[in-house]
Amino acid sequence: MKVGFLGLGNMGAAIAANLLKAGHEVIVWNRSKLKAEPLVAAGAGLAGSPAQAAAGSDIVMTMLADDAALDATLSGSEGLYQGLRPGSLHISMSTIAVATADEIAAAHGGRGQSFLCAPVFGRPEAAKAAKLFVVTAGEAAAIDRAAPLFAAISQRVFRVGDKPSAASLVKLCGNFMILSAVEALGEAMTLAEKGGVQPAQLLEVLTGSLFDAPIYRTYGTLIAERRYLPAGFAAPLGLKDMRLVGASAEALRVPMPLLSVLRDHLLQAIAQQGGEVDWSAIASSAARNAGLPG
Amino acid sequence: MKVGFLGLGNMGAAIAANLLKAGHEVIVWNRSKLKAEPLVAAGAGLAGSPAQAAAGSDIVMTMLADDAALDATLSGSEGLYQGLRPGSLHISMSTIAVATADEIAAAHGGRGQSFLCAPVFGRPEAAKAAKLFVVTAGEAAAIDRAAPLFAAISQRVFRVGDKPSAASLVKLCGNFMILSAVEALGEAMTLAEKGGVQPAQLLEVLTGSLFDAPIYRTYGTLIAERRYLPAGFAAPLGLKDMRLVGASAEALRVPMPLLSVLRDHLLQAIAQQGGEVDWSAIASSAARNAGLPG
Amino acid sequence: MKVGFLGLGNMGAAIAANLLKAGHEVIVWNRSKLKAEPLVAAGAGLAGSPAQAAAGSDIVMTMLADDAALDATLSGSEGLYQGLRPGSLHISMSTIAVATADEIAAAHGGRGQSFLCAPVFGRPEAAKAAKLFVVTAGEAAAIDRAAPLFAAISQRVFRVGDKPSAASLVKLCGNFMILSAVEALGEAMTLAEKGGVQPAQLLEVLTGSLFDAPIYRTYGTLIAERRYLPAGFAAPLGLKDMRLVGASAEALRVPMPLLSVLRDHLLQAIAQQGGEVDWSAIASSAARNAGLPG
Amino acid sequence: MKVGFLGLGNMGAAIAANLLKAGHEVIVWNRSKLKAEPLVAAGAGLAGSPAQAAAGSDIVMTMLADDAALDATLSGSEGLYQGLRPGSLHISMSTIAVATADEIAAAHGGRGQSFLCAPVFGRPEAAKAAKLFVVTAGEAAAIDRAAPLFAAISQRVFRVGDKPSAASLVKLCGNFMILSAVEALGEAMTLAEKGGVQPAQLLEVLTGSLFDAPIYRTYGTLIAERRYLPAGFAAPLGLKDMRLVGASAEALRVPMPLLSVLRDHLLQAIAQQGGEVDWSAIASSAARNAGLPG
Repeated sequence: MKVGFLGLGNMGAAIAANLLKAGHEVIVWNRSKLKAEPLVAAGAGLAGSPAQAAAGSDIVMTMLADDAALDATLSGSEGLYQGLRPGSLHISMSTIAVATADEIAAAHGGRGQSFLCAPVFGRPEAAKAAKLFVVTAGEAAAIDRAAPLFAAISQRVFRVGDKPSAASLVKLCGNFMILSAVEALGEAMTLAEKGGVQPAQLLEVLTGSLFDAPIYRTYGTLIAERRYLPAGFAAPLGLKDMRLVGASAEALRVPMPLLSVLRDHLLQAIAQQGGEVDWSAIASSAARNAGLPG
Repeated sequence: MKVGFLGLGNMGAAIAANLLKAGHEVIVWNRSKLKAEPLVAAGAGLAGSPAQAAAGSDIVMTMLADDAALDATLSGSEGLYQGLRPGSLHISMSTIAVATADEIAAAHGGRGQSFLCAPVFGRPEAAKAAKLFVVTAGEAAAIDRAAPLFAAISQRVFRVGDKPSAASLVKLCGNFMILSAVEALGEAMTLAEKGGVQPAQLLEVLTGSLFDAPIYRTYGTLIAERRYLPAGFAAPLGLKDMRLVGASAEALRVPMPLLSVLRDHLLQAIAQQGGEVDWSAIASSAARNAGLPG
Repeated sequence: MKVGFLGLGNMGAAIAANLLKAGHEVIVWNRSKLKAEPLVAAGAGLAGSPAQAAAGSDIVMTMLADDAALDATLSGSEGLYQGLRPGSLHISMSTIAVATADEIAAAHGGRGQSFLCAPVFGRPEAAKAAKLFVVTAGEAAAIDRAAPLFAAISQRVFRVGDKPSAASLVKLCGNFMILSAVEALGEAMTLAEKGGVQPAQLLEVLTGSLFDAPIYRTYGTLIAERRYLPAGFAAPLGLKDMRLVGASAEALRVPMPLLSVLRDHLLQAIAQQGGEVDWSAIASSAARNAGLPG
Repeated sequence: MKVGFLGLGNMGAAIAANLLKAGHEVIVWNRSKLKAEPLVAAGAGLAGSPAQAAAGSDIVMTMLADDAALDATLSGSEGLYQGLRPGSLHISMSTIAVATADEIAAAHGGRGQSFLCAPVFGRPEAAKAAKLFVVTAGEAAAIDRAAPLFAAISQRVFRVGDKPSAASLVKLCGNFMILSAVEALGEAMTLAEKGGVQPAQLLEVLTGSLFDAPIYRTYGTLIAERRYLPAGFAAPLGLKDMRLVGASAEALRVPMPLLSVLRDHLLQAIAQQGGEVDWSAIASSAARNAGLPG
């Protein structure tokens, strides 16, 4: 299939590489061209603008840093709205606000273009290994059309409804769940440590019994070793996602006190340790507040 | 082995039955005798008091409702402190306060008796299936001595140190982790529902990807179906456990804001729905506060 | 002085009336003209647009519902930016975001226009009685120039710096303080009531001893009588203000856990009771969560 | 009147001195005799035990550090229960648990002794100046009997019911209200400071307008100057009081999320700064978590 791919950060570059490997014809674009070079070397075409990437493509995938970057890619004479042919399909893979997803869906619809939200779960290593989980929503026909692409990059695809923004909401809920687990681990491990039990020992019990899930293993180890640098997912990005959860919670009138704890601990981590740390550094907020080194 | 077993609630009765099945000679005691009948029918002896259960036993296990019930079983002329021979071993399997565990350990030590904390993870069904997880702490020799008993009731045993109360602390942390996961599910599923995504659909994504652990499956289903009755573990017992976590947190000077959310939502569930509901009814606090039926 | 006045809600109409009473020449504008009639009857001029109100005025005061309404009044060919003569002064009296205040200050500055933030404390009755408290920030010369107007509407003026947005920040802090006091009253009165002490009795002790301030008297009475309708300041407006506090807190990296409690209780009040209730209905969230009628 | 007075800390000593000044015949007792010396020098009698202080007294007042100290003074052969004549009156002035007050009331009642709770609001300076606020509950006749003593030490007496523990509950609510105001100030002043507004400037606006109450002036100044040492009321005592509020909240099934914030910030202050700091150091928890020096 002919695919345009916009946004070549850690996640995007790994996904685009897997599309190439699977035999698709990929034309890439990135704000800074340097990041496109390895993909071009591997056989990808290089577009000078989003519109150019869209010109000959059936499907354009975007994996951009945030809502503003996505908007910038969509708008203007060289943007996707202009560049995408009627009948073509835009698949947004980044974590965006529910309201943004609704707006984009309406804008594409008004131009006869199709739109899917298809955010993914998985860190960069999972993206490289084509082991992502894709959560997608939108018209069934569009999802069917995208199936070969999703197959090339993921271990499983979840369909969560006809409205694209439903996938954004599910993805945001998932990120909230992950960070909630981190917070719980952070508080429990701090309590254990001050009570004379090694955090690693507590973690072994948890992951060896009821919490036998990768999320607890991965983050538990980071916390036990106080390894918050380098960031797999930087705290300010986590804060952005929690802000998007909060925006939906406010719009839908849903009090979420646990979300508030997460936001406060992210703010503390950034205020005390800077914006470079991993979002799991919220666990160090818990530790510091108890007088531990953190 | 000759084993005394005190406390025949849902959990205790199932554990004692498995000890019998494994060929141990079990003498049981319970405050209300009625609950002992099925075990006596299955071959257990019946003691008239804790001391009598202890008289001929190498090891006495206790599985009592709370710290007060355990204290009542230990004290007095018919209690365990009096009845247990020097050199005998008391294994406390219920979830008790860290401070209580320290006091009991000292009291037994002063009488030449051994003491282990060995609380368990698992609901009554797991107890029946001999699939509990045992978390134990105390002298290594005592744990070795208890090994055949633990083998008869559990799928795995974790040793977390020499000080019995360390096992209490780990168990309390575990219960805190479970309820934290329930809270996170409750908030996320409420947000999803108000945003037009079926809670069951969200749950399928979570448990099918990063949260592939029994805890999320079990509690997620209860929440999605709003099935808080009958209780597997009643809200007031959950509140008691969270109070014990809080007592340790206060003694050790550990702020735990997520714990506070759990306590408040438990209080709300009990205030609004009564003391019969399952502790997972904290999820219905989240739903009600957002204006859903809960 | 010749004064343009834009925005004739409860607060704005009362303020404009006091400017008239003090002898100033006032020309008013409001999106819906109906609200201007009483003022015109009292001697005010009527402008057809913000720009027209600005045309002959030395100073234009705005008291609009929110940031969006203010922006709409500023922009466009009939807006203030176009209509205000260089050297003229715009005084924004509504509660706006700190970031918005900074943007407006820059925009006016670029056109040679002066700008002050001068939000006020006080409910509509205080506005009618010319007993407001004005908090203002900006160039000292501009504040001096506005002094006669402030004198006509307030009992006291506080100057909090050279940067207009500082007054917004102080005002937002003040609203946060008020709602914090309401939350504290709500929780304490709920506890008292469930413990057999009449809320009014608790309130008498508090306001008769350490909390002898109008804020406690006013809101305490509303809560004791569960009188949340009609709203003096509607919950969604309170939520908007707390969102603005939260936006500053996030931008400045300040965790504010008490703010989070306020936001959650506002969301609950709106979800359960609708958007008509007073912002003090957060106290009824506290009562309901304890199983009281609320 | 002949009055026994037990407990000569900062508060107790000042109160006893005022009773002497008002012409009452006072016999004092304190665990460490050293503290009794200034009062004896001023004319008080010295008792060797609580019972001895009670022997010739119509009324015995107690002002002890906590529930345990009060219990120790009541129990045993030299305690108040034994020493107080039938018909005599015990007035407990310290802040005690509601449940403790109920137990003591029952115990006195069973011995034909009268009992009042009469905790006070006011710091040591207010005690010295006989400007305390007394909150009392119990039989009206007993309160009438105590009136001359209350008059000698306070500026105002509030009667809050027939059940002595009602006064404890009101006092605990009051302390919760005070610390809530401190938390609100701490968060607002941190936000202001990071936003470029001097905390003292914010405080001037608040206390000059809607928050014109001593509590805001006193604590606001401490916070603005980061003056948490020496403690007027040490953080661990504040924590104890908040624990008593929490115990009532748990018993009465009242979720109090703001209380949880206070407890967590007290724990943090003690963990990070030690047990010597004033309870208003919770404001420094807010500042530190935002990356300020605190």
